[in-house]
Parts: sequence; structure tokens; C-alpha cells
Amino acid sequence: MNKKNILYAQSGGVTSVINASAYGLISKALKDPQIDKIYVGINGITGVLEGKLFDLTKESFDKINNLKTTPASAFGTCRHRLKEGDEEGFQKLFKTFEDYNISYFFYNGGNDSMDTAHKIDEYSKKIGYDLKVIGIPKTIDNDLYGTDHSPGYGSAAKYLAISMLEASIDTRSMAKDSTKIFIMETMGRHAGWLTAATSLAKLNRDFGPHIILLPERIFEEDHFIDKVQKEVSKNGYCTIAVSEGIRYKSGAFVSDMGYTDSFGNRQLGDVGRVVANIILTRLGLKVHVSIPDYLQRSAGHIVSKTDQTEAIMVGEKALEYALNGISGFMVAINRLSNNPYKIEFGKVPLFEVANNTKYLPEEYISDDGYGLNQHFIDYAKPLIEGESYPPYENGIPKYVSFPIE
Amino acid sequence: MNKKNILYAQSGGVTSVINASAYGLISKALKDPQIDKIYVGINGITGVLEGKLFDLTKESFDKINNLKTTPASAFGTCRHRLKEGDEEGFQKLFKTFEDYNISYFFYNGGNDSMDTAHKIDEYSKKIGYDLKVIGIPKTIDNDLYGTDHSPGYGSAAKYLAISMLEASIDTRSMAKDSTKIFIMETMGRHAGWLTAATSLAKLNRDFGPHIILLPERIFEEDHFIDKVQKEVSKNGYCTIAVSEGIRYKSGAFVSDMGYTDSFGNRQLGDVGRVVANIILTRLGLKVHVSIPDYLQRSAGHIVSKTDQTEAIMVGEKALEYALNGISGFMVAINRLSNNPYKIEFGKVPLFEVANNTKYLPEEYISDDGYGLNQHFIDYAKPLIEGESYPPYENGIPKYVSFPIE
Repeated sequence: MNKKNILYAQSGGVTSVINASAYGLISKALKDPQIDKIYVGINGITGVLEGKLFDLTKESFDKINNLKTTPASAFGTCRHRLKEGDEEGFQKLFKTFEDYNISYFFYNGGNDSMDTAHKIDEYSKKIGYDLKVIGIPKTIDNDLYGTDHSPGYGSAAKYLAISMLEASIDTRSMAKDSTKIFIMETMGRHAGWLTAATSLAKLNRDFGPHIILLPERIFEEDHFIDKVQKEVSKNGYCTIAVSEGIRYKSGAFVSDMGYTDSFGNRQLGDVGRVVANIILTRLGLKVHVSIPDYLQRSAGHIVSKTDQTEAIMVGEKALEYALNGISGFMVAINRLSNNPYKIEFGKVPLFEVANNTKYLPEEYISDDGYGLNQHFIDYAKPLIEGESYPPYENGIPKYVSFPIE
Repeated sequence: MNKKNILYAQSGGVTSVINASAYGLISKALKDPQIDKIYVGINGITGVLEGKLFDLTKESFDKINNLKTTPASAFGTCRHRLKEGDEEGFQKLFKTFEDYNISYFFYNGGNDSMDTAHKIDEYSKKIGYDLKVIGIPKTIDNDLYGTDHSPGYGSAAKYLAISMLEASIDTRSMAKDSTKIFIMETMGRHAGWLTAATSLAKLNRDFGPHIILLPERIFEEDHFIDKVQKEVSKNGYCTIAVSEGIRYKSGAFVSDMGYTDSFGNRQLGDVGRVVANIILTRLGLKVHVSIPDYLQRSAGHIVSKTDQTEAIMVGEKALEYALNGISGFMVAINRLSNNPYKIEFGKVPLFEVANNTKYLPEEYISDDGYGLNQHFIDYAKPLIEGESYPPYENGIPKYVSFPIE
């Protein structure tokens, strides 16, 4: 039998379980008699362009196994995007594919990464290079089209719900004569999935959040201040989740950092502080602000067991599809039922993922626009169920790493 | 036998294990034949002033037991401080003591709370009311005098070390063509204990932090920028922990919010953003900033087992001291050895705790002032050892609460 080599790479922003997908793919590939070498691109497609691959076949079982519980990107990632017509880039890339005799390419990422994977698939067909390209979904933003949800979201959602719960009982403790307002700023600039997840903090008992500012709703200052006052009167305190992407009626972001990232996206930040200052100025109440930032996407110390399990399975499924000759698709998760929670795996064309965004459905948002309703809870609750903890050494998690650069 | 009533209250900023101390005291008192009623002051001394006590003796074992793993203040806290000569306040307070027939008073808090406890002890002697007053230490700041460390510090230190580790591997993942600098702002305005704790992120492998900005060191911009450049050259990225309390040579806080809290302390915030802007302006590198804020002191989802165990024990010890007729002291932890880690309990006069601050020792700080050395590691590592997790329900922790107000 003619054994084949595979190449796997990670791309875009990281998650707590992207390495769990790597684990799923790699551990299955190691056992597959059709597979010879398992290569990894250092820093995503960038390493492939530079011919920097890493041979995982030689690594110890312990190191591979530890990928399951290691957050962020163990092999490095990138924000580089292959552009249409970048002939030199594609030639470099396929030179590496040829040099390492790659038959299967797996790209683990979000929209932008699926766009790149799609272009690679197209180019391989154009030049007649026999390559199977499969996308593995990953994003805390949960905005990937064609899949019920994306691995990474459940764990970020769990982290944010827990953090909001803990900060809410903290604020409740202090409200008598100190802090009455707590604000937590979440990631997710275009879709409110992450901000919405803080509503899961209320599943056992309602300590907050009392207000959720979604990017799907215009930020109206007067209306918001009324709502804050009402909540403080009612509860003695008020905790608030705010998306980094909320905008004024004019379309301007409430907090615009004034520069763009390498993909041309406007950089946002500290909207939590802006909202805090509005409350401080108008109501004179003491406000605390938390900005978890990267902590929400790399919190390997508290991972959703459901999310981790599915992340492993999409990695396994990707290999299965590729070995069955499928190319140009991303593995998708289809939900069969909420309660009991049941899913099955499917596939969606890469170009569809690349060219669409999955927004938070309007019917999940509460009537007043400041919260989520039961439809959202039914959807999101199963995704945060179960706890997975990493191994510890010296009081801190033991995470695996591979040489980058 | 003449049974006695006890009163317990929590004060000041919360921690992940202050309720564990309540659990220690209460569960021991419930079994003690000398104790009749166990009262709790709602919102600390404020509830005692208002005659708002809560009878814990009637609560279920399950609820009491759940205190062990519930962060923040289950009974509410306050920042109110009894002032010398506030005759009306003291009279109100002792009216409550008399009404509820209180023989033992336990105040669980930091410096300011020990000052209040001390004044209550003095006043009881002055008016001839037979009261035993014992302080129970609690603060994430670790700045309480007369004790090797304070319950609450170990868990906050563990949370910050884990968060810094996770954000550092995140930044390492992204550094190839995106974020090269990550900054995490920590609490602890006068002493660098919390900021220093992020150095524990390096115990297993050095992913960062590469720079620690302690309040014990003057912030010198040029020197700092040099250091950042060197670290980025060396590692490809640089992660930084910064104390909210760092100052310029002039004495001005790097970030001064421009207002004071109810104790007259200047309110600080967002120094992380200030430092980020300096780096962005001078080096043009992409920076991410995390401000955990309350999350670092209420992270019941990942608690140091050592910290939790000791928090329970100081609660138990407090009862033992009071029943032995001791008054006017705070329970202290004395360290016998680092390795193996051994402690014993002792006591320190309340007025000494009230009038002193325990600073981070100069000999713990590295020569260049941007890190901690082995002396600090030897001190702090035992405090973050072991993991305690709360019970979960619906994917989020199950925390207990009692009616406040």
C-alpha cells in the first residue's frame, strides 16, 4: 500500500480546545495504516509557505496526549491570508506540499482560514495536484456558517458565564456601601454569541448579569441609563456584559481604537471603560470593569467537557472525510435535539463558510434587547455542560508546547 | 452550663476563600456544646449597627457545607469603618450585642477591619461588656502584618499565575504576524504581592511573564521600553504583568482615576491600557490588555487547596482562641519551613495589624527590578499548591447565598 503524508496547521485566533482537535486528528492518524508522516505547519500557513514543517510522528505519546488539555495554539498560528492571484504564494505552498509529499491538508481555523483552505483546494485542482483539503472549525466567536456551533465557543462561553457569575456575587457582596456596578467586556465584534453566553451565569440563580449589551442592538445611552437605574433600584446592584462591538446609531463603534489589524479589521477595545465612564458621570455610582481579553479564549483550566469532546471528534472526522476522498469541505456539527442534547457530524463547502457569517438569531434576544430568552438558553446550555481540567504540576497547569520558529 | 452566642461578620474586599473561613468557624461552633446561637452580621459591621443579624443555627448542613467552595461574601460585606469617638456608633453596636446576647465577636477582614475589631475590643473593656473579639485574616493583597500570609492570597495568586500562563501561550501562538505584547493588570496598589504572583506562571516552563512592573519600583518609561524591545527580540513576543499601583518618579500614579473611595483611598484603574499605549506609540507593536479586576478575587472555580484548607483552619482557630478567653487578637499563620511546607497558627494583636502593612520584601525582587527571584518562588509556591473545584450544576458552579438586606 502506498502510504500518504498529511499536513495539519492552525490559523487565526486561538481557543481553549483547538489543540484538542489536533489531538483528535493526530491520534487517529497515528493509528491509521494508510498514513505515513504527520506534519504540522509552524505558525499556520506561514510555516508552510516558508517550508517550515514539523514532523509529529516522532513525538512521544505523552506529548501528543497533553495536546487534549492544552489551550491556545501549540504549533503557532497566523493571520496571513492567501490572496486570489498570489501566484508566487501558491507556488511556494505547493512546492512545500511536493517536497513533503503531502496528500491531505487540514486547516484548523475560522472564516478567514476557510477562505485560504478553499483557495488551496481550488489551486490544487487547477494545477492537477492530488490534494484533499478539509477545514476543521474553530472559533470562540461561534460565527462560522454551516455548523450548529464551533468548537471553542462552548469553553469560552463557559468561562464567561462562570466569570460573570463570580463577579456578580462579588458585586452583590460589596453593593451596600461600595461598588454597585460591574461591567465585563467580551470579545465578539460582529455577533453577540460570546456576550450572550454571560446570560448562562443565571442558570442556577439570578445574581446577574442584569444587562447584556449585544452588537445586534444600537447602544442608546439614555435608554441604557434608565435600565441601569431600574436594576440598581431592584437588586441593589447591577452587573453588565458588553460586547466590544456595540455601536451608536451613527454606526460608529462605542469604542474605536483608531487602527486596523493585518486583515483590515478595525481594532476595538475598552468599550467597558467607556460605558463605565458614562455611568459614573451620569449616575455617580462606583463602577468596576473587567476585560478578560485573551483569558476568555485560552482558559484551559476550565474547559467545557462537551466542547472538548466535540473538538476531538471534528479532528477525527476531518481525517475520515479526507481518507474517503472528500475535499473542499469543512467538518460541521448538526444538532439533532437540545434535550437530550444530540448531534451528528456533517460537512459544508469551504467557500460557503468563507463567504458567510452566522449571526445570533433575532429570536434569541429578549424583547427589551438587554438580555437573552429561553431559545438561547436551550441552544447554549448543552455546549457548556461538563468540566474538563488539565493536569497540574507545581500548582499550575502542565501544558505542552512545540518549538515555534 | 451557660451557653453563649457568637457573632461573625465579613468586611472589606472579598476573596475566593473568605466563606471557607466562615465554614471553619461555623461548622466547629455548631458542634461545640458551649455555643448556642451563631449569628451573622449582614453586610459586615453595617448590619450589626442596624441590628440586622441572621441566625445561621437554623440553616441546613448542605448550605453551610457549600460555604466552603463559594467565593465572595455570602453574607455581604462593607467598607464602613468605626471611627474613634463615634460614641453613637459604638452604642448602637453594643445595643445589638446586648439584644442578641453576644459573647464572642469574629471579624473576618483586612487592615481596616482589624482596626474596627480593635476599637470594638477596646470599647467593650471600657464599658465592661464581657466580649471576646478575634480577627480572622482575609485579603488577596497579602499585606496583613503579623502573619506569614493571608488566606485569599494563595487563590488569587494561583488564578493570576494560571491566567498569565494561558495568556502567555496565547500570545506566543499569535506573535508571528499579530499580537506581540500582552499586558495583564493586577490589583494590589501598595504592595506587589499579586503582581509578583504572575511569576509563578513560569514554574513549569518559561512562556512569560517577561516583565513584571511592581509598585515597589519607579516606572521609568525609557528603561522599560528598552526592556520590552530586548524581550521581543529574544522571545518573539513579550508578556507583562503590571500593578495598578505603579508610579512615576514624581510619585504620581501611572493611572490615576481622579477620585477616592469611601475610605479616602485614591481610585486607580486601567494602568494596563496606559502602558499599552506607551508601547504602541513608541514601538508600534500590537498589544492586547487584560484587566481581570474582580475575577482575580472571586475565582471560586479554581481555588488553591492549600489556601482553602488554611482558610478553614483560621476560622476554627478563631473560635478556639475566643473560647479560651483570648480577645483583641487576629489569628496568624507562622511558617515553619518552605520545603516541606509547614505552618503553625499563632496570634497577633489587632492594633498591630491595624497600624502596619506587610510589604513585598526587597530581597524577593530581581536585580533589574522587572521580576522576582528564587526567594519569592520559595515563599509563594507552596501557597498555590493543590486544586479545589466547586460542585457544578448546569455547567456552572453551584454557589450558596444568603439573603442580604
